Amino acid sequence: MNTAVASAPPPATMHDAALAVRYAGIRARSVALAAPLSPEDAMVQSMADASPSKWHLAHTTWFFERFVLGSRPDHAPFDADWHYLFNSYYQSIGPAHARPQRGLLSRPSLAQVLEYRARVDQQVIALLQADALDPQARHQLLLGLHHEQQHQELLLTDIKHALWSNPLQPAYRDDLARHEAPAIPLEWRDAPEQIVEIGAPAWPAHPEFAYDNESPVHRVLVPAHALANRPVSNAEYRAFIEAGGYRDVTLWMSEGWALCQAEGWQHPLYWDDALEREFTLGGWQRLDRHAPVCHLSYFEADAYARWQGARLPTEFEWEAAAAGQPAHGHFADADRLHPGGASAPGQGADTALLQLFGDVWEWTSSAYGAYPGFRPFAGNLGEYNGKFMNGQWILRGGSCVTPEGHVRASYRNFFAPSARWQFSGVRLARDPA
Amino acid sequence: MNTAVASAPPPATMHDAALAVRYAGIRARSVALAAPLSPEDAMVQSMADASPSKWHLAHTTWFFERFVLGSRPDHAPFDADWHYLFNSYYQSIGPAHARPQRGLLSRPSLAQVLEYRARVDQQVIALLQADALDPQARHQLLLGLHHEQQHQELLLTDIKHALWSNPLQPAYRDDLARHEAPAIPLEWRDAPEQIVEIGAPAWPAHPEFAYDNESPVHRVLVPAHALANRPVSNAEYRAFIEAGGYRDVTLWMSEGWALCQAEGWQHPLYWDDALEREFTLGGWQRLDRHAPVCHLSYFEADAYARWQGARLPTEFEWEAAAAGQPAHGHFADADRLHPGGASAPGQGADTALLQLFGDVWEWTSSAYGAYPGFRPFAGNLGEYNGKFMNGQWILRGGSCVTPEGHVRASYRNFFAPSARWQFSGVRLARDPA
Amino acid sequence: MNTAVASAPPPATMHDAALAVRYAGIRARSVALAAPLSPEDAMVQSMADASPSKWHLAHTTWFFERFVLGSRPDHAPFDADWHYLFNSYYQSIGPAHARPQRGLLSRPSLAQVLEYRARVDQQVIALLQADALDPQARHQLLLGLHHEQQHQELLLTDIKHALWSNPLQPAYRDDLARHEAPAIPLEWRDAPEQIVEIGAPAWPAHPEFAYDNESPVHRVLVPAHALANRPVSNAEYRAFIEAGGYRDVTLWMSEGWALCQAEGWQHPLYWDDALEREFTLGGWQRLDRHAPVCHLSYFEADAYARWQGARLPTEFEWEAAAAGQPAHGHFADADRLHPGGASAPGQGADTALLQLFGDVWEWTSSAYGAYPGFRPFAGNLGEYNGKFMNGQWILRGGSCVTPEGHVRASYRNFFAPSARWQFSGVRLARDPA
Amino acid sequence: MNTAVASAPPPATMHDAALAVRYAGIRARSVALAAPLSPEDAMVQSMADASPSKWHLAHTTWFFERFVLGSRPDHAPFDADWHYLFNSYYQSIGPAHARPQRGLLSRPSLAQVLEYRARVDQQVIALLQADALDPQARHQLLLGLHHEQQHQELLLTDIKHALWSNPLQPAYRDDLARHEAPAIPLEWRDAPEQIVEIGAPAWPAHPEFAYDNESPVHRVLVPAHALANRPVSNAEYRAFIEAGGYRDVTLWMSEGWALCQAEGWQHPLYWDDALEREFTLGGWQRLDRHAPVCHLSYFEADAYARWQGARLPTEFEWEAAAAGQPAHGHFADADRLHPGGASAPGQGADTALLQLFGDVWEWTSSAYGAYPGFRPFAGNLGEYNGKFMNGQWILRGGSCVTPEGHVRASYRNFFAPSARWQFSGVRLARDPA
Repeated sequence: MNTAVASAPPPATMHDAALAVRYAGIRARSVALAAPLSPEDAMVQSMADASPSKWHLAHTTWFFERFVLGSRPDHAPFDADWHYLFNSYYQSIGPAHARPQRGLLSRPSLAQVLEYRARVDQQVIALLQADALDPQARHQLLLGLHHEQQHQELLLTDIKHALWSNPLQPAYRDDLARHEAPAIPLEWRDAPEQIVEIGAPAWPAHPEFAYDNESPVHRVLVPAHALANRPVSNAEYRAFIEAGGYRDVTLWMSEGWALCQAEGWQHPLYWDDALEREFTLGGWQRLDRHAPVCHLSYFEADAYARWQGARLPTEFEWEAAAAGQPAHGHFADADRLHPGGASAPGQGADTALLQLFGDVWEWTSSAYGAYPGFRPFAGNLGEYNGKFMNGQWILRGGSCVTPEGHVRASYRNFFAPSARWQFSGVRLARDPA
Repeated sequence: MNTAVASAPPPATMHDAALAVRYAGIRARSVALAAPLSPEDAMVQSMADASPSKWHLAHTTWFFERFVLGSRPDHAPFDADWHYLFNSYYQSIGPAHARPQRGLLSRPSLAQVLEYRARVDQQVIALLQADALDPQARHQLLLGLHHEQQHQELLLTDIKHALWSNPLQPAYRDDLARHEAPAIPLEWRDAPEQIVEIGAPAWPAHPEFAYDNESPVHRVLVPAHALANRPVSNAEYRAFIEAGGYRDVTLWMSEGWALCQAEGWQHPLYWDDALEREFTLGGWQRLDRHAPVCHLSYFEADAYARWQGARLPTEFEWEAAAAGQPAHGHFADADRLHPGGASAPGQGADTALLQLFGDVWEWTSSAYGAYPGFRPFAGNLGEYNGKFMNGQWILRGGSCVTPEGHVRASYRNFFAPSARWQFSGVRLARDPA
Repeated sequence: MNTAVASAPPPATMHDAALAVRYAGIRARSVALAAPLSPEDAMVQSMADASPSKWHLAHTTWFFERFVLGSRPDHAPFDADWHYLFNSYYQSIGPAHARPQRGLLSRPSLAQVLEYRARVDQQVIALLQADALDPQARHQLLLGLHHEQQHQELLLTDIKHALWSNPLQPAYRDDLARHEAPAIPLEWRDAPEQIVEIGAPAWPAHPEFAYDNESPVHRVLVPAHALANRPVSNAEYRAFIEAGGYRDVTLWMSEGWALCQAEGWQHPLYWDDALEREFTLGGWQRLDRHAPVCHLSYFEADAYARWQGARLPTEFEWEAAAAGQPAHGHFADADRLHPGGASAPGQGADTALLQLFGDVWEWTSSAYGAYPGFRPFAGNLGEYNGKFMNGQWILRGGSCVTPEGHVRASYRNFFAPSARWQFSGVRLARDPA
Repeated sequence: MNTAVASAPPPATMHDAALAVRYAGIRARSVALAAPLSPEDAMVQSMADASPSKWHLAHTTWFFERFVLGSRPDHAPFDADWHYLFNSYYQSIGPAHARPQRGLLSRPSLAQVLEYRARVDQQVIALLQADALDPQARHQLLLGLHHEQQHQELLLTDIKHALWSNPLQPAYRDDLARHEAPAIPLEWRDAPEQIVEIGAPAWPAHPEFAYDNESPVHRVLVPAHALANRPVSNAEYRAFIEAGGYRDVTLWMSEGWALCQAEGWQHPLYWDDALEREFTLGGWQRLDRHAPVCHLSYFEADAYARWQGARLPTEFEWEAAAAGQPAHGHFADADRLHPGGASAPGQGADTALLQLFGDVWEWTSSAYGAYPGFRPFAGNLGEYNGKFMNGQWILRGGSCVTPEGHVRASYRNFFAPSARWQFSGVRLARDPA
């Protein structure tokens, strides 16, 4: 499945005919991700935070129907009832099916949802080929493609949790590429105090795509600090566990400790209790000691850093390090769907800081909030990002299940500090001695 | 689907070859009940009290594998992991998958479960044809057939709730028989004080099958009372609603009132707010004013009776009336799957008290408990009934989704007083003036 | 504190002047029970099921104000706001302060509540001395005295739980009488099948007081059975614990087992984990092996009986044994406030069955329900008992914290099967061999 | 009660004899705050987030006993059990009584707690007068005085909630000063981009006291922005309500909206539904339209700002404005215990931005986190602040119930975004046009 080129988000200046090709490629990839799943697999919702694969397939299609096709006077809805079923959280355009109930939707069937996708795609492509989209609809379409890629990642993290929740714990795929390589030693890279331009110009006024939460560009004074040259490895994290890290209250945020006790955390999600194996999208595997640790909550990442006498980086420290670098790394297109060791200098674009992009999302110590001068997307899509700027933490850099080309240096992901089912890891930072 | 003859539970004296035919008939009926469902439909668990259809199909099969085949030294389990998945609550034979998580089981697939059924059936039938079952295994098999019939009813009540929980609210079947007929006027039938033999002799010591909770036969003094000649109708219950029955605290048990307020009850489950239509296994239908009201909780049945200056019957009053009557009525085999009006004297076996059997289960004022001298089934199946003798109320008579031949005058069904998703109705009783 | 004579409930034929004396005696006893408590102690509500002592003192007074004084045209409420605060559950006469919030009522103060008591008592006694009560008010007053005694018991069980919930676990009193005596051996007393008159004639039509739930008298066929000659002792119950009774799922009701696991039950409430000591109203004491075990839930009593190959008695078996016996035993007036061993034949009124009355309430296997022909008290007090006839089990006989003279053979107490903070124990029954 | 001078926190260079005087003054103030309360009032815990007044009095004393007296080899604990009762959250020094259970502590009595205070004070003062404290103990004592002042504020906010939770809703005091004055018009004050020194040098290395979370001093680039010259008034906030602000989902954070719906928020805590009156520590009062609105959650403050086309300030914008100004304003020492209008230029130390200090805490858009280079206090007190740096938002400036002298420009208060029972208001900020 080498879809890297096809799935890269289209440049803003692309002609519509070429855009139609990109559209088709990204849309096809979602269907391909669901191919290993039975209709029953595609319906599982193993927790309220996750959604069924079928729902992801339908919701992303609804997004195009509602925001691209739906603005046209002659549009006839595919099925009027589905607006309710597949709206996620856009309350300004109408009520939505309750999120924790998504797993009850045996109807429409997976087959019907796939037909829905085909029908909507056909119409969208026809409009593109006819150059019939007005500028606003074209913007919504571009946003829809980035949105689709976000759900491609969630489809994988959600189905991983779903399969793991079944006592049989089957693999998602048996044919995934395996990658094991020794991690290079952890070293510190110093950065001096500097004023950094953070963020991206507001799209669509500016032609390069970015989410509203990345804008506007603004100046931030980043203090002198050091960053680790790679993420923390499984072996390093296992040492923390064996040293009693999950039993030492002084290492933990108060809320994290309470959660750790209530849930009985003793290791990252998906590890076995012997600390020898972990559940992956390819099933249970021997733990690769060199690979970046992942499926950590913010609380675990933070406790680990404290145990090391270090701390988490701010999102500005991270972005200052990543700015100007190409967003290369092990993304979903490598078809591993699991992080691997930071083996070789030169693997990334920069030998100084490896794996900034791909492999694992990196928790930062920055709470998710608005940049000064932030303006939500116009219209109904104003709910896209802004209303979640509370109680969440920023992660940076993408992961092994992020589509190639989806992230950039200014990209801001965010999750609640309790979240463990994303491919979330940790890169250490520290203050000058 | 005329399966009435095939599905009747086998007489205890039946030869094994004939028993094999009955076994096959009852087992086939379960599969037939699931035929209208997609694999996705068969996986839905819409609340913790309900189970997916696929789970019913697998669990009933597991029962035969575990208790009939499993006792043989040469038995190789179909899949050892499935013992955990499809045990329901027999804690003495091992742990079981958590009940509220049954809806997460995308694996095994419906197809695999159907293959499981076929394989187990093949082995059981071969044993029967070879006269190879020892008496204990034969008893377990007979019990398993009654058990299968219970799950046939639950499959229907659970899928009704599942489909109703989907905002699209599809019908289970579009081809169900419709039956509407005027209900005869409600009249009272007096019964004098008498000592009644209640219950059934303990099976398998006695050859006629009965559940352990129906035994032993014992004498009960039933006081003078009167019973209504038929269950309460939709029209009668609607009058209660329109008279403010759901807003009058003095009519309700304290716990029932709290539940009514918390859940916002204003009418029976599955009615629309206009009191005009109800959701059935055939989809939304106009409310039949003559049909027995159903999908009432105990609390609603009890409040209605109080509003009428009446009360619920005891299970002994009910059994005294039903004893000696043939268990005729509208059961699942009538293929309506919905109750209908008590139209014609002579419809049941007795003109005096219509619809004692079939149409709707009748809540009684008797808490579920042990009869004096009660002994649970021997061995592992001792958990079958006894451990639920707490916090539940007896219902009598079977319903329109009960397999024909499954119930009898001594049959005791039981549910929590909050339960509304069974076909549960109410027959009034009263004390002498 | 020898209040036995004063606190006995008045005969119905008593003249009003004498009734005033009885009234004063019973009312004074409530105040005496609160005397060991500070204003702060009297405010504690340690769980939603319990109430603060101050609330008991106020609510019982409100009962007289509302139902005796309040019916008089010239009555000026002591404080109109208090109707809301001190109504318990009489929804037909107005809303009430939420039960779980009773512990927040720092105002009115204990001193104000005591003044409230004095003022209401003064008015009630004046009316009695003037023979100014009409028959209905007189009935409400008599009912209020029985109601007051119920709350005297609850005051003690609730303050026991409150003090135990404080990590300091102080004693309620340090001067309680201690009673230890060897329990006589457990023996079985057979009873033949018989028809028994159960219950009491309906008061106030009949002059002897009884609660509405005890009426009407009706005939019940009680089967042949045997009852143990005394309640189960601490030593006997400890053997059950040491034999693994709390770890054997087959002994428990399904709901009881779930509760046992969720709450971590390993012994009766108030025992220490070493099974050596128990918390009493006199503080921590060495466990008296001869005394009746108490503070058992229904589930524990039932599991113990099953372990013994026995069962709980029905309330009819119990009443048949107690009928005609004087209600003598160790009640609160013995000033032990803790059960003691059934040491000596002749201690009770009957050598055959000891401790039927007093010491510990005895769980029965009878769910709380209405007798045939049951009618609630007329008017607002119809909510007194009837609306709780769901999900509760009958206990019989009174306890060491029940006021002497409060109970009788037909008296029906009831609690949820999970309740452990009452002085609830177990007497075994069994069916004929 | 003019305790302003006595209660100001002592300069670090103060001699021990003078420090003893300050100690006594601050300690006496806590007792004075509890003087209007009965022992019963002092025990109420109306929600898990609040504590009883008695607990505040005891816990602050425990702090001195544990951290100042307890380090001395000859110290005999006042009562060893109390360590468990009155530890708050210092898990590294031992377990603590569960926070939501603090309201159950009828023992020790308020009188005993007051005696405890007197005994500990006597010992501490004796040590001070003898110059017998080593430097570490002296630091703990100084920290204890600031800690005491925090609890003085909490005692007032908690008792306000407790009294309001009682249906009688009594006043805390009837003799509070009233202050009503017209608010000056709201105007914007521009600030250019600048690099600002944020925070305070680390104490005790630096002699001026500051909490660990205020350190170290570090440079922050604050962007160009404008701040409102005063907090939002009740009249302004009422306009937001009347314009439908509580019904417009687009104004709210997603989590805030869910909470608003679940709790039925329609106005600030303590307002009546008619928007005419508010509950104060002096009881119900007519709403002063000129006074700063208070008792807002973060979500309400944020939604209001969005409705105004504005935003909340960052904590750095706030501190940049406040730096160098004397911390003057209406604090608890004004003995109003309620905010009042920003009436007169010159009222604060700066005519440009009124009421930065006192009246109401001002929510900022800054999540509570560590400054770069942050180090928790050494030793056991490392748990004081750091472990709460998650899920909370910064408030600045102190309120009408903060002791005078307690806050400073670098002072960081923090609460969960749902918190409404503090005196929390809002000052608007906006980005340059």
